[in-house]
Amino acid sequence: MATEPRDAVAGERGQRGRGRRPADEVRADVLRTVGEVLLTEGIADLTFERVARLSSVSKTTLYKWWPSKGALAMDGYFHAVQERLAFPDTGDIRADLISQLRAFARVMTETPGGRVLAELIGQAQTDPDLSAAFRRLYSSGRRALAGERLRRAQEAGQVRAEIDVRVLVDQLWGAVYHRLLIPDEPVTDDFIIALVTNLLDGIGFGDV
Amino acid sequence: MATEPRDAVAGERGQRGRGRRPADEVRADVLRTVGEVLLTEGIADLTFERVARLSSVSKTTLYKWWPSKGALAMDGYFHAVQERLAFPDTGDIRADLISQLRAFARVMTETPGGRVLAELIGQAQTDPDLSAAFRRLYSSGRRALAGERLRRAQEAGQVRAEIDVRVLVDQLWGAVYHRLLIPDEPVTDDFIIALVTNLLDGIGFGDV
Repeated sequence: MATEPRDAVAGERGQRGRGRRPADEVRADVLRTVGEVLLTEGIADLTFERVARLSSVSKTTLYKWWPSKGALAMDGYFHAVQERLAFPDTGDIRADLISQLRAFARVMTETPGGRVLAELIGQAQTDPDLSAAFRRLYSSGRRALAGERLRRAQEAGQVRAEIDVRVLVDQLWGAVYHRLLIPDEPVTDDFIIALVTNLLDGIGFGDV
Repeated sequence: MATEPRDAVAGERGQRGRGRRPADEVRADVLRTVGEVLLTEGIADLTFERVARLSSVSKTTLYKWWPSKGALAMDGYFHAVQERLAFPDTGDIRADLISQLRAFARVMTETPGGRVLAELIGQAQTDPDLSAAFRRLYSSGRRALAGERLRRAQEAGQVRAEIDVRVLVDQLWGAVYHRLLIPDEPVTDDFIIALVTNLLDGIGFGDV
């Protein structure tokens, strides 16, 4: 029953009571379901079978939209963290970066989200399809959002205009990923604050 | 023949011509062999069998020293790059960081070394033993070397004393790893220079 292709037969059966749900709505529903599983349980128990059952969508439809478990996981994860990892804009780039990076560190260290991402990045090293899906469905989108906020800081005169903000993404979020993937040192609040302070103020003596 | 445990029978056969090699020498020889294979061919063709044959050491001995292929690979890799990735000390931290990071970027992008590390880090995400071996045999040692050079820059008055140099390791080398593991953006020379400049000079306006 759980694996029966529900919406494939919906046209015949009619289902006039609820009507056929628009694809966008079904899609959003699936992504919400996937995100919930990932952030509460992790990736091990995420299967197409289970997502199909939980969201009442046929596996055929799921495979049509997401060709692999990795793609489904990343799309779901992106949507799940979108709100939590929003980039605040209070007009103070220092405060905004620290609060966003804190939220990011919390998801990474206090939910299964950190393991999910680490395992996906890990698998992507020997799976070119997964690597491409990761970038397309997750990291390039996250990079773009961070870049937007940093460019507004440039416009506001808080970050120098000649700085390539793409590099800052690697020196802030990339530095956190580094500690997650190679855990020689922990991700602490002091670390988060130092990331931002080092870049905004510089580590030298300003006598250049 | 290739897999015959050569040094296990060396005692009986005598081999008086060369005599039995000291363990340190044998070990260094194996690590050199492993490093050469990794930096010229990558990790796919690295097997205990092949290393035993190439360095005329029994597999038994190899397994005694390195319990897994991952441990053998990381120890060999650490030694192979030790010289190339040495931390110069000309007294100018800016120039020294740029030249070391350039050498690091070259190994990562122009030799199979980058793939080797990426795959080891990837596998380590689901293999706790490999993760521990990676840190013990590679990353903690590399971190320590970088930290030493950065602390000398603090003593020389080029980096402010209150800076936690461990965070700089993540914002410099960690940022390069980020682009290698999640290749949304390439590792270019401009990127390397920006990493160092952003930190030393700061990205704000210094009016804190």
